[in-house]
Amino acid sequence: MTKAEAASLPATEASGIADLPLIAARLLDRVRDERPNVHAITNAAAQVLTANLLLAVGAVPSLTIAPDEIESFVERAGALLVNLGTLDTDRRQSIERALRTANDRGKPWVLDPVFVDASPARLDFARACLIKRPPIIRCNEAEFTALSAKEPSTPSLAAYAAAARSVVALTGMRDRIADGRRVVAIANGDPQMTRVTALGCAATALVAAFAAIEPDPLTAAAAGLLVIGVAGEIAGETASGPGSFLPAFLDALYGLSAEVLQARADVS
Amino acid sequence: MTKAEAASLPATEASGIADLPLIAARLLDRVRDERPNVHAITNAAAQVLTANLLLAVGAVPSLTIAPDEIESFVERAGALLVNLGTLDTDRRQSIERALRTANDRGKPWVLDPVFVDASPARLDFARACLIKRPPIIRCNEAEFTALSAKEPSTPSLAAYAAAARSVVALTGMRDRIADGRRVVAIANGDPQMTRVTALGCAATALVAAFAAIEPDPLTAAAAGLLVIGVAGEIAGETASGPGSFLPAFLDALYGLSAEVLQARADVS
Amino acid sequence: MTKAEAASLPATEASGIADLPLIAARLLDRVRDERPNVHAITNAAAQVLTANLLLAVGAVPSLTIAPDEIESFVERAGALLVNLGTLDTDRRQSIERALRTANDRGKPWVLDPVFVDASPARLDFARACLIKRPPIIRCNEAEFTALSAKEPSTPSLAAYAAAARSVVALTGMRDRIADGRRVVAIANGDPQMTRVTALGCAATALVAAFAAIEPDPLTAAAAGLLVIGVAGEIAGETASGPGSFLPAFLDALYGLSAEVLQARADVS
Repeated sequence: MTKAEAASLPATEASGIADLPLIAARLLDRVRDERPNVHAITNAAAQVLTANLLLAVGAVPSLTIAPDEIESFVERAGALLVNLGTLDTDRRQSIERALRTANDRGKPWVLDPVFVDASPARLDFARACLIKRPPIIRCNEAEFTALSAKEPSTPSLAAYAAAARSVVALTGMRDRIADGRRVVAIANGDPQMTRVTALGCAATALVAAFAAIEPDPLTAAAAGLLVIGVAGEIAGETASGPGSFLPAFLDALYGLSAEVLQARADVS
Repeated sequence: MTKAEAASLPATEASGIADLPLIAARLLDRVRDERPNVHAITNAAAQVLTANLLLAVGAVPSLTIAPDEIESFVERAGALLVNLGTLDTDRRQSIERALRTANDRGKPWVLDPVFVDASPARLDFARACLIKRPPIIRCNEAEFTALSAKEPSTPSLAAYAAAARSVVALTGMRDRIADGRRVVAIANGDPQMTRVTALGCAATALVAAFAAIEPDPLTAAAAGLLVIGVAGEIAGETASGPGSFLPAFLDALYGLSAEVLQARADVS
Repeated sequence: MTKAEAASLPATEASGIADLPLIAARLLDRVRDERPNVHAITNAAAQVLTANLLLAVGAVPSLTIAPDEIESFVERAGALLVNLGTLDTDRRQSIERALRTANDRGKPWVLDPVFVDASPARLDFARACLIKRPPIIRCNEAEFTALSAKEPSTPSLAAYAAAARSVVALTGMRDRIADGRRVVAIANGDPQMTRVTALGCAATALVAAFAAIEPDPLTAAAAGLLVIGVAGEIAGETASGPGSFLPAFLDALYGLSAEVLQARADVS
């Protein structure tokens, strides 16, 4: 962030999205009806769960990573998810082509810079993706710190989002989603969610599904994470461990009603 | 299809296989006893479920896609499954070698041309596989249309099967399996099956397992899809969503008795 | 094994590890507290289950196979798992680099030479890994025979372990773990474990997690396999097939207490 960018930030973070739980319920209904295609270039451990999560809400997943096919798949998709968890040769080429196609066609896309804190090569690749200006970035605290670290200190979430001109969805015990102007916080969820591999990666696919039908990226991101958090909470109440948590979570997502979503939503 | 080929078609589609439910029950028993090896070159999202489905019926899966190993694996397998859902460099090379080995050794193989309707590169690759004359092709309606589209119109299933000299298993709400001479229809199944990723891909592996021990490809394909449909129906009765459907489906397949299979079969 | 090596073998296999069940319970507690990082270069069918098994016991998995990232990931890991089940170009390069890094930094690693009995190319690659002297090798009977076969006959487990200067964990109906001086046998487990793909591969990741915190590789290997066997036994008592077995197994692992582990352990 340059000084000029920093100076343009709001003095205080504006709060929230009015009626987010109701909006989330309507978006979930629309996904169930309209069944948007979501193309996910995602890591090897996340592919199955990402597809199953999308199918559970009625969206239609595709997962190809072949460079000579990727443009056809992105063109027919309503939104694109780019997850950096596996960075092999095919995926690197495909991501480049997919981002060009998505931006040329005005398709929304979501960047999930998994483990950028663990490898310099991955951080470089993520920075090259950031230059293409992702409408939405989903990351955890360690990834956010790696992405945003600058002298003399890490910027605030809102400041970073403003400078990047992206919505940033920072997930953790409490999710915070910001676009530089507004910030939403979501306190739903269950600790068991961290005991299932790639659940966060798959959750980001729901954000992409919502972005396929909702033009405001902050709303799409916050609504997606709210639905995931509530489904996780419901699953946590019946599961007896991480093994039974996963099927319970997909069932909860599949059966989630507007009433339950609104009654349980813990948004500020 | 040339005119000569069209002229050789039966005037009306002959119907069925006598006693298919009984034959399917016997094939299932034989797979449980004889434990055939099935080698699956399949897509990244289908590998785990394909292996677990094969293990649930007692078959022995292998999944390698490395070009320098593929011939060894095909030689020791009783049947080969080729699914085009992921077409990376290794898989393209391996598929070529695997088909040559399978045809040289007279091993049955099944082609699953996933998503050929979504990418021209994939359709070209699928056509190159069709030239090797797959004993069985498994596809859905959109894939069938892409594969068979010719001026002035898409041929009937039976006409296409006759021209291709392959058994074609067209799956959907109602499965139809044809070899150009006979057609079998199966109405078992459950809508939840479409909410679990790669269930159709994995089902095709059971067709391959049956083809490993049953010389008539129409019988192997129809029996395999019947077993899948009945297991899906049983799972659908207890599952409370797509999350619990998957373990229930594998359990149903594992425990399926000849009596239940025959009592539930809805074949015409 | 040379004649000199054979001559240095003990006349009879020394037995066991005193108090293995208690030691295993303590290691499990320590993994839950200390949450070691385990990096797994593993096959495509094993990645998800490997990560979920590690998460169920509180360890932190990473799975990347990209050659230019592998060194960063191995450096931050407490232990490394190398499974040969998928041998594509990226994995071959990454394994070479990972083993060099692990040995340079003194990090424990475990070799799982999956299916070396099925492909000469794979057996060659496994032999190249053996030259780097894995602290622990986990294999089944067929893989052990392929690895160790020499004229005029296959050596005993203890003799092979002594010559290789590795701990060898030979899994089957009854697991035997040897380091050339001591041998431990574990009779826990459940037949359903063979009906879930990659459960053995994932189990080896627990051995790696234990090796991250326990300096004696024989103890780490035996304790890891004991915990897996007991969790499998518990799951087998409630599961109604391989579909419900898997979530039950992860739940059992997650909830396993020191008391139950010690009460059920069948070690000699």
